[in-house]
Order: sequence, then structure tokens, then C-alpha cells
Amino acid sequence: MTVAHPRLLQQLPTALAEEQVDELLRTPNLRIERIVSTGHASPEGFWYDQADHEWVIVLSGRAKLRYEGDADEIELGPGDAAFIPAHRKHQVAWTTPSEPTVWLALFWSGDAPF
Amino acid sequence: MTVAHPRLLQQLPTALAEEQVDELLRTPNLRIERIVSTGHASPEGFWYDQADHEWVIVLSGRAKLRYEGDADEIELGPGDAAFIPAHRKHQVAWTTPSEPTVWLALFWSGDAPF
Repeated sequence: MTVAHPRLLQQLPTALAEEQVDELLRTPNLRIERIVSTGHASPEGFWYDQADHEWVIVLSGRAKLRYEGDADEIELGPGDAAFIPAHRKHQVAWTTPSEPTVWLALFWSGDAPF
Repeated sequence: MTVAHPRLLQQLPTALAEEQVDELLRTPNLRIERIVSTGHASPEGFWYDQADHEWVIVLSGRAKLRYEGDADEIELGPGDAAFIPAHRKHQVAWTTPSEPTVWLALFWSGDAPF
């Protein structure tokens, strides 16, 4: 790792053409990413369908997450987290345009949580 | 999991006799915890010596981390993270007394990061 003590909320980009994904740590079974969204959302009809389990938390900003087949969106603000099992289709329905939304996302293969 | 979408910065305890540790997720190889400190620090001369690797990030508050043999402390505020390899002795030198310090900590066994 090049940065032993990353500061995830400093020097944030403000207007991004696409979401910015920075890998913070990787082992064979675990990956930690910082994702910065500036008003981005998934395209209409697009669903993430991931082989890995994901646990994600919003560090700053606001976002709405939607699972396929669910009518309700889940609104996430700072400190709000979600576990997304492998192959549970989901999309980012909305992120606030008024400030960067910073996500911390963990991905791992293999066992689901107990 | 009893709480699918935990809100880690809500309804925080304010004056704790000891640090409060809540396990958020567990698999055979990965554990995610929220730790709330209200001015707590490691006892003088105490060092954590963990079999697991740890990656920790401060979500709110402020803290200082010290590694054994290092003169300098690492000050962490919101969004600041640290990777602590297994058996790297460390202590929490300080947490702010003026607000709860909320840590998100990941622990895993096995491979170190690339």
C-alpha cells in the first residue's frame, strides 16, 4: 500500500464525469474501496449483479439504494450502512448533487455473514 | 443479522464506563465492529497484540493511535483510516473527551494486503 493512513474525506473531487473508485486495500479475499459520487446514479434499468458480497457505508453526503423487486428505496446518510449479498441485484437510485457522497465499500468472496 | 441497515452515527452513547463494541457482521474470516469511545484510551503500557489484521477508520470524533516503537502518534479524524497488520503492537493513545469517537473496524485472518 502506498498510503498507510489514507484520509478518505480530504481533498475530495467535486464535479466528476464518472464516479471515482479508489482501491484502498486488497487481499485475495477482501477488497476495500472508496467511491466518490457527485450526483451520480445508476442508469435507468441497470442493476449491479456482483459475485462478491458487499458491505457499504456512507461516510459523507446522501444516497438512495434500491434492490430489485423492492418498491422502497433505502436512504443512507453519514454512518448508514447496508449489507448486499452476492447476486442481490441493486442500483444507486440517487446521490445528492449538493456535495460529494463518499462511500466506503468492502467486497469479499465466499461465506455470507452468520 | 438483526439490523440490515445499521445507522452507526445515530443514538450514540455519551458517557461510557468502557468502550462500547457492537459486532455488525461476521463471517468465518471477516468481522466488522463499531466501537464507540468517549474519552477512553489504552492503559499506560498496554499494547494490543492481535492475531487478525485490522483496518480501522474513524467515522466521527478524534483519536490518536500509537505503534510500539514509534515516537509519533497518528491523529485520526473523520474519514481517516489505518491498516494495522496482525501482531503489530499498538494502543489508542487518546480519544477526544468532547464528543463520542466512533470507529469502524474490520478484522480478518489470513492474507495480508498486497
